[in-house]
Amino acid sequence: MISVVLIGYGNVAAHLLRAFSKSDAVTVKQVFNRTKISTKTFENVDFTNAIHDLVEADCYIICVSDDAIPLVADQLRFKNRLVVHTSGAVSMEKLSAKNRKGVFYPLQSFSKDKPVDFKTIPICIEAVADADIQLLHRLGKSISEEVYEIASDSREKLHVAAVFVNNFVNYLYSLGKEILEAHNLPFALLKPLINETAHKLTFLEPYEAQTGPAKRNDQKTIQKHLELLNNPEHKEIYKLLTQAIQNQHRNT
Amino acid sequence: MISVVLIGYGNVAAHLLRAFSKSDAVTVKQVFNRTKISTKTFENVDFTNAIHDLVEADCYIICVSDDAIPLVADQLRFKNRLVVHTSGAVSMEKLSAKNRKGVFYPLQSFSKDKPVDFKTIPICIEAVADADIQLLHRLGKSISEEVYEIASDSREKLHVAAVFVNNFVNYLYSLGKEILEAHNLPFALLKPLINETAHKLTFLEPYEAQTGPAKRNDQKTIQKHLELLNNPEHKEIYKLLTQAIQNQHRNT
Repeated sequence: MISVVLIGYGNVAAHLLRAFSKSDAVTVKQVFNRTKISTKTFENVDFTNAIHDLVEADCYIICVSDDAIPLVADQLRFKNRLVVHTSGAVSMEKLSAKNRKGVFYPLQSFSKDKPVDFKTIPICIEAVADADIQLLHRLGKSISEEVYEIASDSREKLHVAAVFVNNFVNYLYSLGKEILEAHNLPFALLKPLINETAHKLTFLEPYEAQTGPAKRNDQKTIQKHLELLNNPEHKEIYKLLTQAIQNQHRNT
Repeated sequence: MISVVLIGYGNVAAHLLRAFSKSDAVTVKQVFNRTKISTKTFENVDFTNAIHDLVEADCYIICVSDDAIPLVADQLRFKNRLVVHTSGAVSMEKLSAKNRKGVFYPLQSFSKDKPVDFKTIPICIEAVADADIQLLHRLGKSISEEVYEIASDSREKLHVAAVFVNNFVNYLYSLGKEILEAHNLPFALLKPLINETAHKLTFLEPYEAQTGPAKRNDQKTIQKHLELLNNPEHKEIYKLLTQAIQNQHRNT
């Protein structure tokens, strides 16, 4: 049984607590948070808002904002225990040297109140000592089938790529919605297309799946679309992404 | 029973033929294509490559490239029959005036060999005469639960929005894959995130679902990401979309 203490209780920690509590291989002994949280969420888990009251555990998982990770790691009063963070963007080296460092990064976008199925979520782990890597591997496997050992410099690249396929893609969804609603059309019209675009990747490489006026260099449609877009920012995004698709498919 | 002739046999026509052939309310009497197609696909459907040999039907569905639609409509030898196209970008008015004009636009991205479930695909219809709208409505309902009457000027806007959430989103997928593979990381790592980003729209508005360094104005991560991106085009896309997200969320 791996014992865990969660430090910080935002979206990631709440989802991890829910996932760990379903596993027989893990026990979450305690949750720390600066402000008190509704206790009914916890049941058998101790809560503390005093950082010097943390109980002993196999692994301390820091789930706070990126900037706060080094500060929180420095505040821990114990030494030589395994302390990991859950961030895609922060190097393992930002953790305090007085403890054994590691990373436990679940590569998913967590929203409050929306349950996720952890089984398919890639867990990216990193640690210095072999024994710690093995422990994080078992911890990952307790909630997911996909555990990858990924070093900090690779994780950073992964995080950039995640920004493109998650944050930027979501922004394009909102932009599509904006265009529709400006013309009194329901966003529901686009949802099957959105799902299919994502789902296609099961069968096709994105390069293969590319369609549309940019790919086929249909200048008439491209010009018409640019005339239809009133918002200069939308126009600029349309131009830049059209150009990028054309550059990518120029020689095909 | 609505009788249909398909004119042109690309992706859209192939998918429509498959969908109509499952419906008791529709019979596809004939398929026209300039070049001969493997007959085993057709079974009970007549094939012709002579445009002047088209049989009589309730509705002729032109499934050719946008540019070719007016040319093909002009070549039809009959008069006063219902002739529709399936394009999101072409105005109904581009069809020849000698026949009754209409549009039957399935809002989906079709790939060869990848079957789609038509039931949830929005079918956007348009026609001049009420009786034609009703016929296209029945035709749409024979394969989908979602049939919308949408005029050409609205359909154009819908098509622009579709380019953002389909073509441009798919390009961002390919860009994510490129970044990963440049660092020997498997694209599989990003697929759960891609699916969740699309799936979230069932529960959340895209504006609500927005996360990431741009949304929270995390300049440190944004600068680090820009340094990590070697490709100037990727850098420019990152900057522009980050700026757009910040403009969108400035007052929240």
